[in-house]
Amino acid sequence: MTRTPERFSAVDALTRIREGDLTVEALAGACLERIRARESAVHAWAYVNAEQVLEQARALDRAGPHGPLFGLPIGIKDVFLTRDMPTQYNSPLYEGFSGGVDAACVTLLREAGALILGKTETAEFASSGRLAPTLNPHDLSRTPGGSSSGSAAAVADFHTPLAIGTQTGGSVIRPASYCGVFGFKPTWGMVSAEGAKTFSPSMDTIGWFARTADDLILVNDALVPVEPGTPDFRLEGARIAVCRSPVWGQAGAETREALAQESLRLAAAGAIVTEIDLPEPFDQLVDVQKCIMLSEGRATFLAEYRKDPERLHAGLKSQVENAAGYTLAQLREAHDIAASCRREFDAIAGEFDAVLTPSTVGCAPPATEGSGAMLFNAIWSLLQTPCVNVPVSRGAGALPLGLTVTGPRYSDRRILAVARAMR
Amino acid sequence: MTRTPERFSAVDALTRIREGDLTVEALAGACLERIRARESAVHAWAYVNAEQVLEQARALDRAGPHGPLFGLPIGIKDVFLTRDMPTQYNSPLYEGFSGGVDAACVTLLREAGALILGKTETAEFASSGRLAPTLNPHDLSRTPGGSSSGSAAAVADFHTPLAIGTQTGGSVIRPASYCGVFGFKPTWGMVSAEGAKTFSPSMDTIGWFARTADDLILVNDALVPVEPGTPDFRLEGARIAVCRSPVWGQAGAETREALAQESLRLAAAGAIVTEIDLPEPFDQLVDVQKCIMLSEGRATFLAEYRKDPERLHAGLKSQVENAAGYTLAQLREAHDIAASCRREFDAIAGEFDAVLTPSTVGCAPPATEGSGAMLFNAIWSLLQTPCVNVPVSRGAGALPLGLTVTGPRYSDRRILAVARAMR
Repeated sequence: MTRTPERFSAVDALTRIREGDLTVEALAGACLERIRARESAVHAWAYVNAEQVLEQARALDRAGPHGPLFGLPIGIKDVFLTRDMPTQYNSPLYEGFSGGVDAACVTLLREAGALILGKTETAEFASSGRLAPTLNPHDLSRTPGGSSSGSAAAVADFHTPLAIGTQTGGSVIRPASYCGVFGFKPTWGMVSAEGAKTFSPSMDTIGWFARTADDLILVNDALVPVEPGTPDFRLEGARIAVCRSPVWGQAGAETREALAQESLRLAAAGAIVTEIDLPEPFDQLVDVQKCIMLSEGRATFLAEYRKDPERLHAGLKSQVENAAGYTLAQLREAHDIAASCRREFDAIAGEFDAVLTPSTVGCAPPATEGSGAMLFNAIWSLLQTPCVNVPVSRGAGALPLGLTVTGPRYSDRRILAVARAMR
Repeated sequence: MTRTPERFSAVDALTRIREGDLTVEALAGACLERIRARESAVHAWAYVNAEQVLEQARALDRAGPHGPLFGLPIGIKDVFLTRDMPTQYNSPLYEGFSGGVDAACVTLLREAGALILGKTETAEFASSGRLAPTLNPHDLSRTPGGSSSGSAAAVADFHTPLAIGTQTGGSVIRPASYCGVFGFKPTWGMVSAEGAKTFSPSMDTIGWFARTADDLILVNDALVPVEPGTPDFRLEGARIAVCRSPVWGQAGAETREALAQESLRLAAAGAIVTEIDLPEPFDQLVDVQKCIMLSEGRATFLAEYRKDPERLHAGLKSQVENAAGYTLAQLREAHDIAASCRREFDAIAGEFDAVLTPSTVGCAPPATEGSGAMLFNAIWSLLQTPCVNVPVSRGAGALPLGLTVTGPRYSDRRILAVARAMR
């Protein structure tokens, strides 16, 4: 049976387009058709204008192949400014709002030849506001995870081969795990966050979703300023650390099983697998991450708060009002603990090719219970390390589950190569 | 002789407006008149639309006093998005560009009742691109300093009582010193940088200019989320550290003299003045700052580079192309050195009420020689500490010169109080 274009990976689609076997319009049309068929169930999109997309697809076809992402449809989390589409942040304050300017990474995507397919659903301001209406395409009673809910679900459900998200706590890796797709959060600062809603500038990171590790690498090459090229990597002889992390006590049975199975699998492939424990200061990091995130949120949501506090979700109001009661002295100490743990983790992880750790407590919880915990992601967001979610297994009821591959800051290309070798 | 409204401090103007002795329209009219008279010499403004300003002034008058900055004209450095004015970054890539959205701090200013007077001239993207055309109002053969050139000059030359700028290296404190005005760079993260051009996210900071310390405090109360109120502070018995800084060897005679004189002056006012030396690791910080700033500039100017490298200044192209040849390992080490020096400086400075240090090598150099060195500011930008430029003296040819008051991260309110007590 021939796969239809919406099922192609980005790399496959790109090859076919370059070889003249597929037009951008046909690819876009197949994605739009899939969205039409599935959107009323999945609710992944805040905005799609089929006519606009097809017009831009035809313009790309006329121009002919150019750029590393030529013709590839990509969804943009609705916290990025886009010059030709509304940007609404899932906030009543921004209903119908259009900024008329592109975020830096949207410009980079357009320059790379990508086709902006639409805006994907997000939690309010990618923070602790109202949730996205999106449901998990593997089980519509489950959450896809947040806050990049629409991006993860759209990729998982074949609406688009690629989508962009953001992570401050766990907003890329967690939905990638729940939706069974690859997700990548680069080292902090590798991709300009200009034009994305600011939440916690110490941690806000642009990330992306795809159905293969090669597709993650394709986007990385287009968005980061370093020279393209991912190192060769073989599992045989590789040094892999398994880090249960300081919050292991909260890991569910599915996650425990997945980490154990994957360790065995890597060892069977010839990797030298070593369990590591992080020293005592790392036990504080979940609290430290929360202190920085919520304290920085006081400044970053102040403009919306002053504009109209009544149309801001209680979770965001409480950040500005400092309901948690953090002092500036605590914030300063939190920054200093984070900085010294960054250095310490890099030294520990530098002894290995990669570090394997849980992505989530378990498979996606029921949508009625919220969008899941960022517990296993918060530490890595704080440490600013690159993280790939690798889908590794199906838990109960065939729900997907992922594990995180991480490493020292700036080891982005190596951990992408490790993720590619794993699946 | 009665002062005309454009000469009023922000606090004075606000009092008169609230008491019904001055209309917003009259104040705006006086500022616009001053701009008309002086702009062809000073070149402080990238955009002013007098009709638009007067219309908004009349609307404010009709609405009646509201907000802590009600009716106060304010200039906005042309690196902030503004929904009703062009945002051109002094870049050929953005000629005639209008974003249609307000930067977060512009929203906060409008919500506080301020009157956006126009966009002030900037160095290209507030970075190492082409210089602002602005000249120093105290001597038109001299630079006003960069990159917030127009904001500093406009305040100094009575075009506006207030203006907003940004600092990544020395772009607020240096022009404030050269132009003889007060300038404030808060602790990193205190004011959301959303909607300002990103240069180096580890250091980019929103700052502002005024002609009195009280005016700086007025703006601070409107822009930061913590409760208004500045601590009482008296010089008598205060503990003031004088820090010549690791780059003292490059201080000119005017700066040496100013620091010596101000130390005597503070001692005469009853302060306990202590000279401090920073330990050895601080000697590296100028290089560390440069490594982080230029390395982060690779990502933040990548979108413009990909759009049209030929319309990007050579100084910006060389950042993206990494002409300096920094490795990611060097960048990581630079972040770690910066973080440990932040902690160390806070401990040292925590023993004092404030730290006094040079703002600039000397008075403003000739405009033909560029916009001056950020040497004495780079360390504090890297350390993320709050800095006030206090104008202290007139050097040769009656050119102004300032000194910097700084302190530990988050001591913003105290160092503003110290600056107020000094002049």
